Amino acid sequence: MARLVMKFGGTSVADLDRIRTVAARVKREVDAGHEVAVVVSAMAGVTNQLVAWCQALSPLHDAREYDAVVATGEQVTSGLTAIALQAIGVDARSWQGWQIPVATDGAHGKARVQRIEGGELIRRMQAGQVPVVAGFQGLGPDNRITTLGRGGSDLSAVALASALEADRCDIFTDVDGVYTTDPRIVPRARKLERIAYEEMLEMASLGAKVLQTRSVELAMKERVRVQVLSSFEDKPGTLVVDEDEIVEKELVSGIAYSRDEAKVTLRRVPDRPGIAAAVFGPLAEANVNVDMIVQNVSADGTTDLTFTVGKADLARTLDTLRARSGEIGYAEVSADSGVAKISVVGIGMRSHAGVANTMFRALAARGINIEVITTSEIKISVLIREDATELAVRALHAAYGLDAAG
Amino acid sequence: MARLVMKFGGTSVADLDRIRTVAARVKREVDAGHEVAVVVSAMAGVTNQLVAWCQALSPLHDAREYDAVVATGEQVTSGLTAIALQAIGVDARSWQGWQIPVATDGAHGKARVQRIEGGELIRRMQAGQVPVVAGFQGLGPDNRITTLGRGGSDLSAVALASALEADRCDIFTDVDGVYTTDPRIVPRARKLERIAYEEMLEMASLGAKVLQTRSVELAMKERVRVQVLSSFEDKPGTLVVDEDEIVEKELVSGIAYSRDEAKVTLRRVPDRPGIAAAVFGPLAEANVNVDMIVQNVSADGTTDLTFTVGKADLARTLDTLRARSGEIGYAEVSADSGVAKISVVGIGMRSHAGVANTMFRALAARGINIEVITTSEIKISVLIREDATELAVRALHAAYGLDAAG
Repeated sequence: MARLVMKFGGTSVADLDRIRTVAARVKREVDAGHEVAVVVSAMAGVTNQLVAWCQALSPLHDAREYDAVVATGEQVTSGLTAIALQAIGVDARSWQGWQIPVATDGAHGKARVQRIEGGELIRRMQAGQVPVVAGFQGLGPDNRITTLGRGGSDLSAVALASALEADRCDIFTDVDGVYTTDPRIVPRARKLERIAYEEMLEMASLGAKVLQTRSVELAMKERVRVQVLSSFEDKPGTLVVDEDEIVEKELVSGIAYSRDEAKVTLRRVPDRPGIAAAVFGPLAEANVNVDMIVQNVSADGTTDLTFTVGKADLARTLDTLRARSGEIGYAEVSADSGVAKISVVGIGMRSHAGVANTMFRALAARGINIEVITTSEIKISVLIREDATELAVRALHAAYGLDAAG
Repeated sequence: MARLVMKFGGTSVADLDRIRTVAARVKREVDAGHEVAVVVSAMAGVTNQLVAWCQALSPLHDAREYDAVVATGEQVTSGLTAIALQAIGVDARSWQGWQIPVATDGAHGKARVQRIEGGELIRRMQAGQVPVVAGFQGLGPDNRITTLGRGGSDLSAVALASALEADRCDIFTDVDGVYTTDPRIVPRARKLERIAYEEMLEMASLGAKVLQTRSVELAMKERVRVQVLSSFEDKPGTLVVDEDEIVEKELVSGIAYSRDEAKVTLRRVPDRPGIAAAVFGPLAEANVNVDMIVQNVSADGTTDLTFTVGKADLARTLDTLRARSGEIGYAEVSADSGVAKISVVGIGMRSHAGVANTMFRALAARGINIEVITTSEIKISVLIREDATELAVRALHAAYGLDAAG
C-alpha cells in the first residue's frame, strides 16, 4: 500500500467525459489499496478566459481580485471531480486552498507556498476518503485567495505530496513522459525511465515544457518522487527522482534546444569591477530574464560581453542598454535573433571527461559553427545558427548513443 | 448621507460592458457621499451551466460539492466588479461568503442565513471602501461553502442590508419596478411607487416574479426597506416598505394571475377529523407544493375537497392520491389543468367592505364563471377558465381604478 498524490492538468479534465476518465483512473488506485489525494487544474481554456476578462476590465488590475476570479477554475473542477468519484462509489470530497489551508505568502498572482496543514487530509485518507484539492491556489496572510502563477497546479501537487508524506506524486499530462529529446525532431528519441531532479530542471527550463520549473525545484528540495505520465494512455511514465535512485547513470540523458533566445553582444566594455552589475541590474529592473552570460578575457582594458535574452524581450533589452550607454561605456551593441541554443544534459558528465569534446566534434563533422559556449556541472550549452537546429540535435542524439534501437 | 446595499442580478452583470455600467452606477452613489455595499449574482447563464454539469455527472450529486461548484459564478462576478470599480477610481474589494463570513445552517443547496458579521464591512465602508459581496453563498457549520437556493442573491442582499443597518437595499433587475398588473396584458398598468411587504409577498408568490419570496419575508421581518429598480434605466423603481410608510393606502394595489396551477378535486371525502392531514401529508412528502385549499360544508357525512398544485406536479399528485385512496376514502378524484388563478391584492381591503363584491360583479359582467374562491386578509383569489385570463385581469384592473390616466 502506498500513499499517492495524483495531479491532472487542464487537458485531462477538459470536459465531463475526461473528468469521468480521471475518476476511473483514481478509483483503480483506490481499489488497489492505495491512499490517494487528487489535485486538479481548471478545465482547459477556463483560466485563459478568466484572465482575459480581468485584463479587459483593467490592464493593471488588482492582483488580489485577479486571484479571486481565476481560482474559481480549479474550484469548479474539484467539485465536479468529487461528484464523478462519488458517482462510481469512491468516497471523495473537494478541498479549496483556504479550507486546508494551503498557507502562502502575500504575493498575489505568484504566491509561494509556505505551509500546508496535512493532518486532517491524512486522517481522512486513512479512513478511505479521497481529497480532491483545487490546485494553483492558497490562502494569503490577508485571509484572501492567492494563486501560484501559471502552471502552479504542478507546484500544488508537489507541495501537497510533501505535506502528506506521499510515496509518489503522479503528474498526469498530455505527454507520456520525458524524452531524450524532442521526438518531432528525432523520431528515435527514447522515453527516459528515470531522470534526476537536476537534469529535469535543465531540461524543463530549456524548453522541454513538461513540468513547471518551480515544481521541480520544490520536489528536489523536499525529495518528492515525481512521475510524469499520460492521462490518456495506461502505461508508466518517467520518474523524476534523486540521482541516488538512478543506478545506471548515463553520461548524457538528453538533448534540449531553444529557439526562443536572442544573442546580445556589448563590444569593448571597460574591464573594471562592477561592470556586470551596471549591465544586468537595469535589465533585471526592466524585467528582462537573462539566460546565458559569457565574458572572455580582456585585451587592452576592455572586454566583450555576450548574453542571451528571450526574443520577446529583445527590443526592451536594447532600449535599456542604450539608455545606460553612458554609465556602462561600451563601444557598440549588437543583437542577433537568428540563433538557437542546443544543450547536452546529464548528471553522468560530472565524473567523465571528454563529454564536451564529443559535442564539439559532432557539430564540427556537420559543419555547424559554434558561436558561444557555456557550461555548468551537468550541462553544456552552445549557440549556433537557428537553421541548423534540427541537424545539430539529431547529430548529438546519435553521438551520445541516445537513439533507440531499431 | 445614507448607507446603501446595491444588488445586481445576472442580466445586469451578463458581460464586461454591463459590469462597467454597474460600476458607473455604483460610483454615482459613492460620489454622492453614500456608503455603498454591492451584492452581485453570477453572470447570466453561468449558474445554469454549472448546475447542468453537476447534474450530468450524477443526478443525485452531493449538495456540498454542488455548492462548491455553483458558488464560483458569484465569486467571478465579485472579483470582476471590484476590478471595474477600481478602474474608475472607486476603492473596492470583493468578499466571498466564507470571508465575511455569512454564516448559514448546514442545509447545502438551500441554506438559511443565520448571521452575518458586519463589523469589518461597516468599518471599511466608513473608510470609503466599497465591499463587493458574492451573493447566493455562505459558510456552513462544516466550514464548507453553502448556497441559498435559486434567486438567493436577493436574500443575500436583504440579509446584508440588515447586518449593515443599511438605509435601503436596492435590487437592480431587468424590470423597472412592481406594476399594478402585468403590462403585457394591461398596457395601462401603472408602476407602484410603494408597496407593503405583505402585498409584495402576495404579488411575488402569485407570479409577479420580481423578488424572491424568501427575501421579501426576510425584509419584512428585519424591516429592511427594499427598492426594486431597473439596471438599464436611470429612474426610481418601487419601494417595498412597511405599510406604516404608505400614507395613501389604496384599496387594491394590484391584480396578479397565474396559469401554472391545476385544480384537483376529491369528491365525497368522509368528513372526519384528520382527513386534511391524510390528504396533504403524503403530498408534502412527495414534495408537492399545494396552494389554494377549499373545503365546503359537508352533506351526509362527506365533503368535497378542492386544491391547486403546480401543473408540473399534477401527475405526481394524482399518483400519490391514488396510492392512498384506501386510507383517505374518497369517492372520486378529478383534475383540471385548464384553470387560471386571478388574485386581487391590497392592504387597504382589510378595513373596507365590498372589495370582494366589486370583483365578483366585474367578472360576472364579462360572463366569467368563478369556480373556486379563497380569501386572506389582503387577497382574494378565484379560479376561472384559463382562456379568460386576460379578459379577467383587464376587467379587474379597470374595476378597481388602477388604469393609468390615458
